Amino acid sequence: MKKDYQKLSIAAHRKMRGKIEVISKMPLRNREDLSIAYTPGVAGPALAIAQDKRFVYEMTSTKNGVAIVSDGSAVLGLGNIGPEAALPIMEGKAALFKRFAGLDGFPIVLATQDVEEIIATVKAIAPTFGGINLEDISAPRCFEIEERLKKELDIPVMHDDQHGTAVVVLAGLINALKVVKKEKTKVKMVVSGAGAAGTAVTKLLHTYGFINILVCDRQGIITSKRKNLEKHKKYLASITNSHKISGSLKDALVGADIFVGVSQGNLIGSVEIKMMGPDPIILALANPTPEIMPDKAMRGGAAVVASGRSDFPNQINNVLVYPGIFKGAIEARIREITDEMKIAAAAALASVVKRPTAEKIIPDPFDKKVVLAVSNAVKKIARR
Amino acid sequence: MKKDYQKLSIAAHRKMRGKIEVISKMPLRNREDLSIAYTPGVAGPALAIAQDKRFVYEMTSTKNGVAIVSDGSAVLGLGNIGPEAALPIMEGKAALFKRFAGLDGFPIVLATQDVEEIIATVKAIAPTFGGINLEDISAPRCFEIEERLKKELDIPVMHDDQHGTAVVVLAGLINALKVVKKEKTKVKMVVSGAGAAGTAVTKLLHTYGFINILVCDRQGIITSKRKNLEKHKKYLASITNSHKISGSLKDALVGADIFVGVSQGNLIGSVEIKMMGPDPIILALANPTPEIMPDKAMRGGAAVVASGRSDFPNQINNVLVYPGIFKGAIEARIREITDEMKIAAAAALASVVKRPTAEKIIPDPFDKKVVLAVSNAVKKIARR
Repeated sequence: MKKDYQKLSIAAHRKMRGKIEVISKMPLRNREDLSIAYTPGVAGPALAIAQDKRFVYEMTSTKNGVAIVSDGSAVLGLGNIGPEAALPIMEGKAALFKRFAGLDGFPIVLATQDVEEIIATVKAIAPTFGGINLEDISAPRCFEIEERLKKELDIPVMHDDQHGTAVVVLAGLINALKVVKKEKTKVKMVVSGAGAAGTAVTKLLHTYGFINILVCDRQGIITSKRKNLEKHKKYLASITNSHKISGSLKDALVGADIFVGVSQGNLIGSVEIKMMGPDPIILALANPTPEIMPDKAMRGGAAVVASGRSDFPNQINNVLVYPGIFKGAIEARIREITDEMKIAAAAALASVVKRPTAEKIIPDPFDKKVVLAVSNAVKKIARR
Repeated sequence: MKKDYQKLSIAAHRKMRGKIEVISKMPLRNREDLSIAYTPGVAGPALAIAQDKRFVYEMTSTKNGVAIVSDGSAVLGLGNIGPEAALPIMEGKAALFKRFAGLDGFPIVLATQDVEEIIATVKAIAPTFGGINLEDISAPRCFEIEERLKKELDIPVMHDDQHGTAVVVLAGLINALKVVKKEKTKVKMVVSGAGAAGTAVTKLLHTYGFINILVCDRQGIITSKRKNLEKHKKYLASITNSHKISGSLKDALVGADIFVGVSQGNLIGSVEIKMMGPDPIILALANPTPEIMPDKAMRGGAAVVASGRSDFPNQINNVLVYPGIFKGAIEARIREITDEMKIAAAAALASVVKRPTAEKIIPDPFDKKVVLAVSNAVKKIARR
């Protein structure tokens, strides 16, 4: 029988009353300790930072940590469940930041879903932190919020649902293409989903050098011929579908080499896979139910299959990416996480798997080489 | 030779890169652990909270924790040194919350010193936390910010520089009056300083039942006869100085039984103490240099002396108060910390010292009875 992880998780969260705690790194046993950690001694670090702001990185924890900010508008696959309900996910993210990168993560959920208010709030709290991880904010608001904050803040800002996903997808595809011996410039790729993840995945793959991309939303293939396209879909139309093809997802898949699903469960079947080209690569990333179950995709003829699930090979999981990206960005005091850094991170992540196979295109999150590969790749670009 | 705590503190902060860390309370050893702490299991707590918001207290850590919010405008005795320089103090406060109350504290420093922006920001991040500890925000802005947030939020909000100080001062005076065998309704008290602390101290002592109070600022005794009084000083004039006396601090001290200094170092000498009534009580709380050094005050004829310093008896320290108040408030899910709770907390804190003496009017912060006495007192009032 399959374990009921939701039930187990509720029990664990109840028992522990949440998932994280804030502890002191300095001893606090007696007055002497208090005099060093707190008053009167703490006036020393305070004055040093007042004289030269850069010391804040040397003398505080939060400035080397990451705020995990959400408005609860697009939480997991659960939708707009609000800030309080988003907290367990943000605490989980904080726990994983520590576990995988040694970074301190601080959950912040917001009482507002207004773009300007979110931007103002994040800007107001930004002096506290070394970086801002935006999380589970729905499209298209997430695009403007991230874009503006990147411009207006001097610390790295990354919406993980966009770029964490894009980087791990690119890493998976780099290795999957090795397995099927195809080239990025020659393959036809279909992206299903034009939300936060689909948009960022498409942009990054395009920047990386994939040429033939079709993006589908619920209304079918995105093309500049469609009326009333939202701003981000207009942009997608401009970098994909150069022949301005119209049609359904099914139409798009004919002869395709790669399917990347960041949309919804049970969207395609064996029929669609058989319509694709030879040795098709399937990344079915909808959570918790993929666009097609991995075993079904394999039986349908896929050469390589990956999903978000831990009970099948090739789990595509953002945790392979965001701890390392923020670790690199904060250690190098980067102001902005660039596309070049994301591509370098993806290549580094892919290279952790020495000999990619159909069953292993992506490393295990518990592989200690992962976070170092990713963070070093980011720092290497930063140093240039 | 006296230790240079600022230097020791800088070294300790550099070595540890700050003072706090955010760790996981759940194991994260393998995929199974991840499935419970994070996806897919975490959808369980998220959905439970989405259905009933009250579960957020049962299933998250931050909702049982305290945001420590500062704009860096009035940090220790250092003045307006800005948000980054305030961070070591906020991290210290977080460390102390954990040490003394087992509460998780989350530092938040702000890029703005605008009243409306501060209020908007705290309201926006409030769903994350169980309580808001405002810290080191300068007067008179601190009054409006606290007042508005108390009204507009459904979680407890307390400006510690005001009320933490007021409660510990009241506790000290309750015991000091026992030592000199005087009564609150009959003593004459002088408060030096009409900033955040002086204002809150005066209000709470007035509410507690002290009748004869004079408050002095840099221009002398506050009286409604003075022109252009700020709003909070107008209010102070209305609850003190019923005979509308004008004059200097020196004039105020003639015949006084109690001096409470929350102003500036080296403000009074033995001469002033000799002008006071018999067995005067001196609380000289300016930091790090008191209004008069404790040994000098004793030699000058004071019966009881307290200060903010750890190297003399009777250290008046907010850490005796805020951990217990927030512990009580959060455990009882109180929406507002009332004057009645503050007075109960002060009485409970005073009662931890079984037999008050001139050398011991206030308990040691490391006395484990302190936090329980204070938090239980708050909860007891809440239950009514």
